[in-house]
Amino acid sequence: MKPDRIKWALLGGGADSLIGIVHRIAAGMGDDYQLTGGAFNFDFRKSQQFARELGLDPRRIYANLDALIAAESALPAAERVKLVTVATPNYLHFDMASRLIQAGFHVLCEKPVTSTAAEAETLANLLKARQQVFAVAHTYTGYPMVRQMRGMIAAGAIGPIQKVAAQYYQGWINAVIHDPVKRKTVWRLDPAKSGQSSCIGDIGVHAFNLLEYTTGLQIEQALSDIDTLYPDNSLDVDGTVLLRLGPHVKGVLCASQIATAEENNLTLAVYGRTGALKWAQENPNQLEFLQEGKPLTLLKAGHEYNLPPARAATKLPAGHPEGFIDAMGNLYRGVAKAINGQAVDAGAYPGIDSGVRGMRFIEAVLRSSRNGNVWVKL
Amino acid sequence: MKPDRIKWALLGGGADSLIGIVHRIAAGMGDDYQLTGGAFNFDFRKSQQFARELGLDPRRIYANLDALIAAESALPAAERVKLVTVATPNYLHFDMASRLIQAGFHVLCEKPVTSTAAEAETLANLLKARQQVFAVAHTYTGYPMVRQMRGMIAAGAIGPIQKVAAQYYQGWINAVIHDPVKRKTVWRLDPAKSGQSSCIGDIGVHAFNLLEYTTGLQIEQALSDIDTLYPDNSLDVDGTVLLRLGPHVKGVLCASQIATAEENNLTLAVYGRTGALKWAQENPNQLEFLQEGKPLTLLKAGHEYNLPPARAATKLPAGHPEGFIDAMGNLYRGVAKAINGQAVDAGAYPGIDSGVRGMRFIEAVLRSSRNGNVWVKL
Amino acid sequence: MKPDRIKWALLGGGADSLIGIVHRIAAGMGDDYQLTGGAFNFDFRKSQQFARELGLDPRRIYANLDALIAAESALPAAERVKLVTVATPNYLHFDMASRLIQAGFHVLCEKPVTSTAAEAETLANLLKARQQVFAVAHTYTGYPMVRQMRGMIAAGAIGPIQKVAAQYYQGWINAVIHDPVKRKTVWRLDPAKSGQSSCIGDIGVHAFNLLEYTTGLQIEQALSDIDTLYPDNSLDVDGTVLLRLGPHVKGVLCASQIATAEENNLTLAVYGRTGALKWAQENPNQLEFLQEGKPLTLLKAGHEYNLPPARAATKLPAGHPEGFIDAMGNLYRGVAKAINGQAVDAGAYPGIDSGVRGMRFIEAVLRSSRNGNVWVKL
Amino acid sequence: MKPDRIKWALLGGGADSLIGIVHRIAAGMGDDYQLTGGAFNFDFRKSQQFARELGLDPRRIYANLDALIAAESALPAAERVKLVTVATPNYLHFDMASRLIQAGFHVLCEKPVTSTAAEAETLANLLKARQQVFAVAHTYTGYPMVRQMRGMIAAGAIGPIQKVAAQYYQGWINAVIHDPVKRKTVWRLDPAKSGQSSCIGDIGVHAFNLLEYTTGLQIEQALSDIDTLYPDNSLDVDGTVLLRLGPHVKGVLCASQIATAEENNLTLAVYGRTGALKWAQENPNQLEFLQEGKPLTLLKAGHEYNLPPARAATKLPAGHPEGFIDAMGNLYRGVAKAINGQAVDAGAYPGIDSGVRGMRFIEAVLRSSRNGNVWVKL
Repeated sequence: MKPDRIKWALLGGGADSLIGIVHRIAAGMGDDYQLTGGAFNFDFRKSQQFARELGLDPRRIYANLDALIAAESALPAAERVKLVTVATPNYLHFDMASRLIQAGFHVLCEKPVTSTAAEAETLANLLKARQQVFAVAHTYTGYPMVRQMRGMIAAGAIGPIQKVAAQYYQGWINAVIHDPVKRKTVWRLDPAKSGQSSCIGDIGVHAFNLLEYTTGLQIEQALSDIDTLYPDNSLDVDGTVLLRLGPHVKGVLCASQIATAEENNLTLAVYGRTGALKWAQENPNQLEFLQEGKPLTLLKAGHEYNLPPARAATKLPAGHPEGFIDAMGNLYRGVAKAINGQAVDAGAYPGIDSGVRGMRFIEAVLRSSRNGNVWVKL
Repeated sequence: MKPDRIKWALLGGGADSLIGIVHRIAAGMGDDYQLTGGAFNFDFRKSQQFARELGLDPRRIYANLDALIAAESALPAAERVKLVTVATPNYLHFDMASRLIQAGFHVLCEKPVTSTAAEAETLANLLKARQQVFAVAHTYTGYPMVRQMRGMIAAGAIGPIQKVAAQYYQGWINAVIHDPVKRKTVWRLDPAKSGQSSCIGDIGVHAFNLLEYTTGLQIEQALSDIDTLYPDNSLDVDGTVLLRLGPHVKGVLCASQIATAEENNLTLAVYGRTGALKWAQENPNQLEFLQEGKPLTLLKAGHEYNLPPARAATKLPAGHPEGFIDAMGNLYRGVAKAINGQAVDAGAYPGIDSGVRGMRFIEAVLRSSRNGNVWVKL
Repeated sequence: MKPDRIKWALLGGGADSLIGIVHRIAAGMGDDYQLTGGAFNFDFRKSQQFARELGLDPRRIYANLDALIAAESALPAAERVKLVTVATPNYLHFDMASRLIQAGFHVLCEKPVTSTAAEAETLANLLKARQQVFAVAHTYTGYPMVRQMRGMIAAGAIGPIQKVAAQYYQGWINAVIHDPVKRKTVWRLDPAKSGQSSCIGDIGVHAFNLLEYTTGLQIEQALSDIDTLYPDNSLDVDGTVLLRLGPHVKGVLCASQIATAEENNLTLAVYGRTGALKWAQENPNQLEFLQEGKPLTLLKAGHEYNLPPARAATKLPAGHPEGFIDAMGNLYRGVAKAINGQAVDAGAYPGIDSGVRGMRFIEAVLRSSRNGNVWVKL
Repeated sequence: MKPDRIKWALLGGGADSLIGIVHRIAAGMGDDYQLTGGAFNFDFRKSQQFARELGLDPRRIYANLDALIAAESALPAAERVKLVTVATPNYLHFDMASRLIQAGFHVLCEKPVTSTAAEAETLANLLKARQQVFAVAHTYTGYPMVRQMRGMIAAGAIGPIQKVAAQYYQGWINAVIHDPVKRKTVWRLDPAKSGQSSCIGDIGVHAFNLLEYTTGLQIEQALSDIDTLYPDNSLDVDGTVLLRLGPHVKGVLCASQIATAEENNLTLAVYGRTGALKWAQENPNQLEFLQEGKPLTLLKAGHEYNLPPARAATKLPAGHPEGFIDAMGNLYRGVAKAINGQAVDAGAYPGIDSGVRGMRFIEAVLRSSRNGNVWVKL
């Protein structure tokens, strides 16, 4: 029998928030959660108003995180919120996540999990002796064919890896970067709000995460050349990173926010000794499988021939496209299983280690460019 | 301010039902509905069990439709379920829908809306003097780029239409049709459960519906050649239909369930005097716009350049794929607006007339083939 | 050792002729032919001028076919032209081909091979007792992946065929048909120059030919609905044809010259009991292989895994696109082998039977529509 | 009136040579050349034998280059070979090209034009005061949509360039590199036959050439990380190169011969301030044009809307694929025009400067990796 629905709270993600609706739809996809409360907005009245619209009990809507922790902790265990999603602005992630962990909540945290690698390591240390679930919203790992790719590589489908290539090209910063006023006012290019990095921190890290997620390898060193395009812009809007993974495996990661008119062009190619696998986010329900001397094979979501983690990540029959929110839904399903004590695959959701790795990557890339495009260890 | 959430009940769609989860996710996408009750299963205990899993009030779970109508009608208006989704087996649609209409409920009915055109006309007549919303789950009309196609054609983007072509190819019946036992036992090929038609009734009608939805034209006559493949199989598993629309417009509609290994290959092409539009369900977030003497244009979902109905049907920024459930979600959002008395575009959801048209088409196709591949008027 | 180059003459295809350059490049691709002479133009002086530009011996340039036959026949066998390509306007094909056959020449004739099925049958009868090679320029049969498709179907790769679908959509007539003057003056719509049919005769017949070429089946009956779009236009510019092949195999062939802004969109899909094969002319170097329950396979030209006829039809390594002229080149290579007495596969070039079949198809389609969209046997 | 056909000789490219047939078909495409003689093979008898097969005058077949130069130079100008194509093994290119230039012949030289940048500069110096045509077989510049891309960028279609990305992935070396014996015996990995570089020298340089050809920019600095995969293999089989072009323009060039099972995956993306252009060799007849805030546009070969250099590089109507040999044919047509004294666009064929640039790039890449992945100026 299905376990009771997990009581769930949301920090941020108020009425007009895109990320809020994504989390709420995603969490609802498996009948695993009951949205119980949260703090949706800095403005408490807006938060309460939104709660009314959602039909939530107003007593579970809090003015801030302190109030949430205090009140929820005082409730009997069966009543209490178990999972809290942190979908607030980036600079709040570390503080909120660390307090939630310490207060005993399971946490799903938006990305980037922290502002620095040191903070991410602090979270990792906090979590060490605990049984709490901590997930990072690396949504792309929730796509079924990304999970298929990870599974096939682990099963040896392409042999030992010899080359990797990832790309994440967007163009939206192009629309603001060339205007001296706009580039000073857009939050993404403001270090106070956005953190150390724009391009690598926002999207490059997704490509990095997918590379490590699908290959099972760790990127050991990075050499980067980032670009801010204008001297009065301090954050990277473009960067290419040479990679060295394990012994004898090289690779490249290309990221840009000034790849004009690109939408969300995230691609991944992993070449092994006997074959290769290629995936593209804008056409997410297929996976190219290249094999030495054989025809190209296109695996598609929704088929019995896929591996169990990919099959479990698909709700509909083959040919019925699932998308980005469905991918996020798979993260929530994995988290629910873990909270409910069910066995989960290591790929079911990205944990704090993926957060630590991601922050180390961002810092390594920035240091490499700052120091004259030299190799930096992660 | 957002209206209160609409109380909503579901008939069918119990625990293991695919269509149930699709409807529940879709209805949740806009924060418009509150799942309040229903009758999920013929077996009342299973229904109750599922309600417990969903955290629903057990008093709103009913043994059957009669009980639901009686109990809900007795509640004060503000408490009462307003929308009922009919997701039961096909043969029950007409009976349930007509009783719900007469009891004053808004209805969203799975497709096919009835078993015969006459029944669909009966529903249409019932609805004539009423203000109730009645929607048919022609999910594909909810895709943003289908709505863009409809809007562009209406706006004259391709000039007067001169040729249409639709195709809906699936392969799944191939796996059962060649085995004399299986083809006798699969429900889709059993007229008692499936109705008059398999291929045209299940999928051909979707292609028909999209043709009329996007072009604004009516198909006036059809000449078909259907195939049952084996003499002991009574239902069509393949059919090609010559079409005549308005004056001087011809077309073709190809449907098959024995297009081996095809998944859900639904495509639409409409040719006008100055250009053409082409859409494919398996790659739903783009629309090909061909123009005489100009380069091919690919419109994609999530952009400001799209028409309002397409923009309103997209939740995420360009490049973040949305899929089949998102399309269904757009139908629910249109229905919610209509229930809440907001102005809705005629394309916001397919109404009973699309149900009537679809049933007439199915019957015309069957009659054409039965009578020796002759023209039959719709 | 390679045989001596075959002496070759060209009728039509003068200086500004597109079809002429295509034939000359194609014939040169295998080092099989020596362009020796011909009659390139109705105007003898233009013909001579063109010969000078090509560096040809002026004595082998003739004022007309009579002169060519007379002079060449008088030469010693080793000097004599062996193959004559007929690339003149359509209405001359039958007359020229029949005289060339009777004079003992091998012939490669542009399509349509004749103006009527009766004429094509006359040519077939003329050829019956002779060893002469007669080829029809159904160029698309020369594409390597079309040959792969034919070979795989013959080898049982998709099992017994149960459904076929072909489409040939062009848009160029749209640019002239809506103008009352233009539609009276374009040669393609003038029955005196173009023959009985425009759309079916020019392009539908290619799709027909490919269906029979790849499947090895014969289309037994056709039911069509053609469209002339305007009452004062006598030739079809659009037509859809229901097909019946062998017992229990149905299909459809869609052709149009008013599919606005389509270029040369010829596609072919053949569904068998265990799989399917799909090919598209605008992306000719790949072949989709669908199999029940297995991932989609994309075969590409230039690989060892292809069958011998496909391998023999590729000159370059995989990934180096070959195109339309390369396909025509493969027809010429097949003809050369046949002339040189080497064993050739039945698919090496389309013979007079494909010409007869094609003309019968055209006439059946026209008759079907003329008689009220009834079944007509081929 | 068309000029007389240019007498043309071929060095290398004998009977079984792939590159030979490519050159002969390509040269024949425009009726510009007359293959007159050459030295096809180190073995003079094989060379003579091949000439007999081609029907060439045996007196114009030479034992070696000295003989060719001596004999041809002694002929009257009108009889004499004008253009010589050098299609011999790489290590012979420089010696042959320099002697041919000095003897007054026009030259089309296979790529790499020399073994070192210094040699290429020597050729450039030799050519300075001469009117002779010298072309390098950078075949990809002959594709119509590459020429369209060049023309559109020059015309400002995408605004000032801010980012470039090129990729050339092949997989064929993977099949030999992992076998200790094979990797010692394949000519491509043997420095004596192949030169300083395998991956960058053979394919990376094509990507480099296309970047400079289409953008009109010069790559000023390169920082590379190459890979030989095994310590006992001395030549690069993979390499990624960070690029800096002009002021404020960065880019990346990725090349690999161990991208397992890739065929000939050469792609190019150029991002400007208002738009972007993307081209892929394996689908060469289309060009993606991205524009800020507008739908994606796909330009296709064969249309009037293309620029003159692209239109001139297409022989067939839109929708009739042209391929690799057609691209090479466009180089030959440009060379013929130049030889005949007609005005040619600077993009008509790649000259010695593209050879010099390419060799400098190869050497810069090698030096960068050798010196620890540092920036090297070209």
